[in-house]
Amino acid sequence: MPEKSLDVVAIGNAIVDVLARSDQAFLDAHGMVKGSMQLVDQDVSEAIYADMGPGTETSGGSAANTAAGLASFHSRVAFIGKVRDDQLGQVFAHDIRSIGVEFDVPPATTGPTTARCLVLVTSDAQRTMSTYLGASSLIGPDDVDADLVARAKVVFCEGYLWDMPDAKAALVKGMDVAAASGGKVAFSLSDSFCVERHRDEFLGLVEEKIDILFANQAEICSLYQTESWDEAAAHVSNHVEIACLTRSEHGSTIATADGERVEVPAQMLRRVVDTTGAGDLYAAGFLHGLTHDRPLPVCGRLAALAAAEVISHVGARPQVTLAGLESSRL
Amino acid sequence: MPEKSLDVVAIGNAIVDVLARSDQAFLDAHGMVKGSMQLVDQDVSEAIYADMGPGTETSGGSAANTAAGLASFHSRVAFIGKVRDDQLGQVFAHDIRSIGVEFDVPPATTGPTTARCLVLVTSDAQRTMSTYLGASSLIGPDDVDADLVARAKVVFCEGYLWDMPDAKAALVKGMDVAAASGGKVAFSLSDSFCVERHRDEFLGLVEEKIDILFANQAEICSLYQTESWDEAAAHVSNHVEIACLTRSEHGSTIATADGERVEVPAQMLRRVVDTTGAGDLYAAGFLHGLTHDRPLPVCGRLAALAAAEVISHVGARPQVTLAGLESSRL
Repeated sequence: MPEKSLDVVAIGNAIVDVLARSDQAFLDAHGMVKGSMQLVDQDVSEAIYADMGPGTETSGGSAANTAAGLASFHSRVAFIGKVRDDQLGQVFAHDIRSIGVEFDVPPATTGPTTARCLVLVTSDAQRTMSTYLGASSLIGPDDVDADLVARAKVVFCEGYLWDMPDAKAALVKGMDVAAASGGKVAFSLSDSFCVERHRDEFLGLVEEKIDILFANQAEICSLYQTESWDEAAAHVSNHVEIACLTRSEHGSTIATADGERVEVPAQMLRRVVDTTGAGDLYAAGFLHGLTHDRPLPVCGRLAALAAAEVISHVGARPQVTLAGLESSRL
Repeated sequence: MPEKSLDVVAIGNAIVDVLARSDQAFLDAHGMVKGSMQLVDQDVSEAIYADMGPGTETSGGSAANTAAGLASFHSRVAFIGKVRDDQLGQVFAHDIRSIGVEFDVPPATTGPTTARCLVLVTSDAQRTMSTYLGASSLIGPDDVDADLVARAKVVFCEGYLWDMPDAKAALVKGMDVAAASGGKVAFSLSDSFCVERHRDEFLGLVEEKIDILFANQAEICSLYQTESWDEAAAHVSNHVEIACLTRSEHGSTIATADGERVEVPAQMLRRVVDTTGAGDLYAAGFLHGLTHDRPLPVCGRLAALAAAEVISHVGARPQVTLAGLESSRL
């Protein structure tokens, strides 16, 4: 990895999560698919909120959670995303800064409110998300500070941003600046429905711009329209330098363009409480290791460690210092 | 208890809690006394917030937590308190309504923001609170719907409201309407510093207006300016019908004007995580029992049950349905 003053810049949606316990009947009544993320408009978001139980507000957003995880590992990290200048926007900015992430994108002063994701956690620890993107969807290329991105070893982009044209342009700018300045481009496929919406463009990104890809089983199989995980894994390693393919409790496989395959077991847990943030924190652990020149099997173990921490409690960001876990466990 | 369409109306501050883990060094640096509640202005609140770690926003407020606990026991309950028409005000209103509490006080449309309490939880499970009252301090007699109060068997008032003249007038109106309509007046001394600020007036309330008093050891000893709990307990039972005197892990004593004394053991817990809301939920359990004509020892056991639930997790409101706990445990 080159000498840079930042390890990672993450670009993604700036979202406040509203977490509440729920059940299958509620999901059915609102036509939600368990385990998925659906984009909703403000009216639908408010209708679901009015119907759901008491919530807990915590900062979220996929790449933002990854940034928080990296800071918790004491990596040097910045986040690029857009909030409104409202109370939830202040909450988001406070939380991400207070954990040590650089966050300097000015909030929007007009337009929709800060993004909100209603996260319904069922008793099987699955989370089902309805996201109102609000101000987050206003992110554009001007919000991507080229100097900041050029300072980072890795730019980490969340696929969810691909849903809005300006946000897409922001991601492309981040990727291109990283490539031009000797940085690596990491990308998360985010969600299988997101892959379905943008399959052709995501295939193009994988072939042309992405160095490090994060995907779970449903996402990588959707990308290559196959039911065979092995087939999908073989495809992707023809295109990216490193593919991190996660399979929940079955662990993950790190496949490289050189043909290396590292199998990483999942950490055993007494109880999985809430899977929100598992993929985001997996990426944090992996990128922390990678940007600190650790061997791939160690990167994988750090990824599994961070994912295990975040699914052992409610909420999508670590509740302990991951740097502490790292030194005590690895 | 008379025939009424509501069991309890609670009057108190409408607050959103911002919970974060902290340590003694942080409390020292900000001159905070561990375990206490201090009132702060907006500037101090913002300075502490800027310095503290990532938080979790949840609805709070002492009497509001009691109302939420009562609803969780399936008591019929309403809450009177004031928020602003901002995002945190919407969060407060959503949460308390969604658990089944009637809450119809219109939000303020101008003036300070919804009240916020910064709750710092240390590793010994103690909580230290800095409260910016904001819109909550705007509550006045007009917000107390006399018809609503007259419908309730008990009006439950939090002592914290005594800090503002209009809020005090609102409490007095609530107490007087309850007394005139055959309801009982319950009151929480809230905090030993609050008792110090208002000792003479609180002594007057105890002698003239309060039927049911809730106090912990520090509060009741401060009220009677004695270090002897026995002496304080003897004093108070000369004045109120029922005094519920709590002593953390040592349980509580219910002392009546008839000279009855019921000793209630605290529930044994494997681990105390966060004591925020212990007193509020104790009051919820007790008032649920009392308004359902249960004998005092059962009321005490319900109080201990609700307090134990809320200190077994982070946050000041129950995470399970207390009615379910009641039927499985008692």
